[in-house]
Amino acid sequence: MPHPTISVCEGYFPEEPVAPVVVTSSPGPKLKKAADALNKVFDSRAAYFVADYAKSQGNYIVDVDGNSYLDVYAQIASIPLGYNNPKLVEVAKSDKMTSAIINRPALGNFPGADTEEIIAELLKVAPKGQDKVWSGLSGADANELAFKAAFMWYQSKKRGYSSGFSTEETESVMKNQAPGSPELAIMSFERAFHGRLFASASTTCSKPIHKLDLPSFNWPKAEFPSYKYPLEANVAANQEEDRRCLAIVENLLKTWAVPIAAVLIEPIQSEGGDNHASNEFFQGLRDVTLKYGSLLIVDEVQTGVGATGTFWAHEHFNMSPPPDMVTFSKKFQSAGYYFHDPEIIPNQPYRQFNTWCGDPARMILAGAIGKEVVDKDLAKQAARVGNYLYPKLEALAGKYPAYMADLRGKNRATFIAWSFKDASLRNKFLADMKTVGINVGGCAEDSVRLRPTLVFEEKHADILVAGIEKILSSY
Amino acid sequence: MPHPTISVCEGYFPEEPVAPVVVTSSPGPKLKKAADALNKVFDSRAAYFVADYAKSQGNYIVDVDGNSYLDVYAQIASIPLGYNNPKLVEVAKSDKMTSAIINRPALGNFPGADTEEIIAELLKVAPKGQDKVWSGLSGADANELAFKAAFMWYQSKKRGYSSGFSTEETESVMKNQAPGSPELAIMSFERAFHGRLFASASTTCSKPIHKLDLPSFNWPKAEFPSYKYPLEANVAANQEEDRRCLAIVENLLKTWAVPIAAVLIEPIQSEGGDNHASNEFFQGLRDVTLKYGSLLIVDEVQTGVGATGTFWAHEHFNMSPPPDMVTFSKKFQSAGYYFHDPEIIPNQPYRQFNTWCGDPARMILAGAIGKEVVDKDLAKQAARVGNYLYPKLEALAGKYPAYMADLRGKNRATFIAWSFKDASLRNKFLADMKTVGINVGGCAEDSVRLRPTLVFEEKHADILVAGIEKILSSY
Repeated sequence: MPHPTISVCEGYFPEEPVAPVVVTSSPGPKLKKAADALNKVFDSRAAYFVADYAKSQGNYIVDVDGNSYLDVYAQIASIPLGYNNPKLVEVAKSDKMTSAIINRPALGNFPGADTEEIIAELLKVAPKGQDKVWSGLSGADANELAFKAAFMWYQSKKRGYSSGFSTEETESVMKNQAPGSPELAIMSFERAFHGRLFASASTTCSKPIHKLDLPSFNWPKAEFPSYKYPLEANVAANQEEDRRCLAIVENLLKTWAVPIAAVLIEPIQSEGGDNHASNEFFQGLRDVTLKYGSLLIVDEVQTGVGATGTFWAHEHFNMSPPPDMVTFSKKFQSAGYYFHDPEIIPNQPYRQFNTWCGDPARMILAGAIGKEVVDKDLAKQAARVGNYLYPKLEALAGKYPAYMADLRGKNRATFIAWSFKDASLRNKFLADMKTVGINVGGCAEDSVRLRPTLVFEEKHADILVAGIEKILSSY
Repeated sequence: MPHPTISVCEGYFPEEPVAPVVVTSSPGPKLKKAADALNKVFDSRAAYFVADYAKSQGNYIVDVDGNSYLDVYAQIASIPLGYNNPKLVEVAKSDKMTSAIINRPALGNFPGADTEEIIAELLKVAPKGQDKVWSGLSGADANELAFKAAFMWYQSKKRGYSSGFSTEETESVMKNQAPGSPELAIMSFERAFHGRLFASASTTCSKPIHKLDLPSFNWPKAEFPSYKYPLEANVAANQEEDRRCLAIVENLLKTWAVPIAAVLIEPIQSEGGDNHASNEFFQGLRDVTLKYGSLLIVDEVQTGVGATGTFWAHEHFNMSPPPDMVTFSKKFQSAGYYFHDPEIIPNQPYRQFNTWCGDPARMILAGAIGKEVVDKDLAKQAARVGNYLYPKLEALAGKYPAYMADLRGKNRATFIAWSFKDASLRNKFLADMKTVGINVGGCAEDSVRLRPTLVFEEKHADILVAGIEKILSSY
C-alpha cells in the first residue's frame, strides 16, 4: 500500500522529526538527576523518563538529555493528537479555556452560559444509542460514577422510580447499613483493569501491585475468553471458549449471594494483556445482562476515541441493543460516562453530585479532540495505518517466533500487542527499544502493547518495524 | 475599624461592581431556559444558577439574565481569588499552562522538566511539618488516595517496611480476600463530609442523600463535639463534651473489630453544619491516635488555603506533633495530600499510582494561588475582614434571635455560620437573599455558611450585613 500523498501529521507538524535521535543511554545523566531531585518531594520511583514537553512534537517525545523518541506509548495511551498539536494550542489559548481554568464552576449548581454547548460537542461523538453524559475526572472516577448510577438505578427499579426513601433507609444509611446502604455488586472479569480507587480496584484484577493492602468489596469476577492464536486456525476452540465464559457469567448472575447491578467490561482488556473477545461473546453478554436485569457498562477508557479504528471500540461488536453506559477518559483528556435510559439519571437531584462535577477546561479540550478526530477522519486513518502495520508485524512474528507470540489486534487499527516468553525478556525488549529511539510500553507481565497517537502514520510504522527488527535480530 | 486605604481587591479588579444589580427575580427567564436546555443532555436539576462567567468580576457573579450578585458562596467554597482574577488570567494564558493542558503527562512515569518546580511551589505553602505531596483530582480523590497510603502504611508496619509480599497475599488479593485485601478501617465522625466515592462516602455522614443505595465499608464513626453557644458562657459544658467525644474515639480505637489505620477529621465540619471543636479536642485526638498507632488525616478540602485566617485551618490548633496527612482541594483548584513521614510513601513503586497522578495544569494554578495568598497576605486579610464582620453579625443575632442562632466562626476569619430554626426557614432566607443581590449557601439542614473568596473585604461585608438585615427585618 503506497503512503498517502497528503499526511494529516505533516499538516499539524511540519517540523516533526523525520527519525529518532538517541544521544545518551537511557536513563541519561540529566534524566537521572531530574528524577532524583523530584523524588525528594514527590514519589517518582516509577519515573523512568523525564520529558521536555516544550520540545516534543507530534509522535516524538524528547527527554531532558535531548533524546528524541518515536512514542508508541503516548502517556499510557492517552495523548490523542500528538505533542503540541497546533489545533489544541489554539483551544488552550482561547478565552473560553482561560475562563474555564480560572473560574472553575461547581457545575451541578452553577453551570455557565456555555456549558450546554460544551456538552453538545461531547455528544456529537457519543456512542450509538447514547444521548446523555455525566462528567468526572479520571478513568477510575468515571467507572465509580457509573457504579453509583447503576446502584441507584437498581434500587429504584425495586422501589419504583418515583418513590421516595423510607425512614429505615435514610436512618440505616447513616450507619453504612442495609437497607439504606444495600449489599449490591458489580461483576467484572479476571485480568480486567478499571482503576485503583476502592470500588474500581474491587473490579480490577490484572496485577496484585494495583491493590495489595486495600480493603475491597467482595464482588464477582467472571472469566474473560482466553483465545488461541492465530484466530483463523482456532475457530472452533475459541467458540467453545466463548460459550464456557458466558456460562460462567450466567451462573454468577444466577447464583451470586447479592444482586449484581451491573456487569463491567473492557472491549479489549488492555492493562491486563490486550485480551480480545469476539462479537458473539459481547452479544452473548448483552443478552445475558438483559435476561437477568443487570446493566452493561463498557469501559472505553483505554480503547475509546479512535484508537481501534472506530470512534468507540465496542462499535466493532454491533451489540443490540447498545450497552447501557460507556465510560471514557485517557485520549479524551476528560472523563465520564455516556448513557441513554432516562432512568439511569437518579430519581432525585443531588444524588449523582459533587462540588465540581467534572472539569469544563478538560471537557472543552475533549470536544476539540472529538471534532478533530471526526473532521480529519482519524479513526479511519488509524485503521488504515494498522492495516499497513499488522502484516509487517506478522512477518516479523514469523521470522522471530521466540519473541513475538500471539500477535493480536488485527482489524483493530494500531491497537496491537504480542507476547514474549516471560517478563524479563519483555522488559529487556522495552529497554532495548530505547537504544533505537522508540518509546514503547508493556501490558500484563509478558506482553508489548502499541498505543501510538492518532497521528501515527505509515512513515512512523516503518520506523517502528525497522526498530523492532533491529532489536529482535540482535537476540 | 476603618477600611484599609489600599484594597487588594481594587488592585485586582478596578472595575468590580460597587453594589449588586438585581434585574429579574431568581431564577430569571433566561436562566430557566438555559437550565432546561442543559437538562436534556446533562442532569442539571440542581442548577439553580446559570452564570455568565465572562462578565463576573471579583466578588460578583453575573447570571445569564444580567443579575449581578455579591457571591459569598463562591462555587461551594472553591473560588480563591475572585472571578477573572488578572493574575490567574496571566497564568492561564502562559505557555507553561498551554503545554500542561495539551501535553497532559502520565506524571508517575513521564514527569516533565518543570514538574519539580511545580511541586516545589505547592510545597512553599505546605502545612507545618510536611515536606512531600501526592497529587489527585478532587477532594474525594484526595481523601481516598490518603486512605490508600494509610492502609499500605499500616500493613507495612506489620510486615516490615522493606519486606515483600507473601504468595498468600498476592494470590488472595486477586480474589479481593484477606490477607492480600485485609479488613481495615478508617474512622471518621458523625456529621462529617469527605466526598462521595465509595470509600470516601463510607466516611461521609452528613446527609442520607449523599450515599443512599451505595454499598459501603462498615467503618466506625465517632462523635464530633456538639458545643453550646455562645462558647464563652458554656466553657465547662463544652470541655465535658470534648472529654465525652474523645472517650468515644478511644473506645472505638480499642474495641473496633478490625484495625483502624487512620482517623479522618475536618478542622471545621463544613457541609455537616460548620461544627467547631477546641484546640484541646484536636490535641487529644492527636494524642490518642499516636497511642493506638493510627494515622491522623486532616481533611482541609473546604477549610484550607486561607479561608479561616491561617493558610491551613488546623494551624489554629497547634497540634504537636502535626497531623500525618493533610488533604486539599477546592480553593487550591487542584487536589492531593501533604505528608512528612517517609514510610507513608508505599514500600514499592506502582502502588500509589495511576495514569495521570493528578493534573499539572491544575497544580500550576494551585502554585500561583498559593503564591498570591502569601504575597498579598490574604489569609491575614481574611482574618481582618472576619474580625470586622463577626461583631456586626453578632449584633444582628442579638436583634433577630429567632433567625440567627448559634453564630459560630469567631476568630476564624470569614468562615462564619449560624442556624435557623428549621430547613424551610433557612431555605426561604437563602432564596430571599437573592432579592437583595446576594448569593449565599447553606450547610446541614438548617444553617447558613459564609464562604466568600479571599478578596472579600470590608466594603463587601457592609453590603452583606445590610442585605441580611433587610431580609431578616422583613420577617
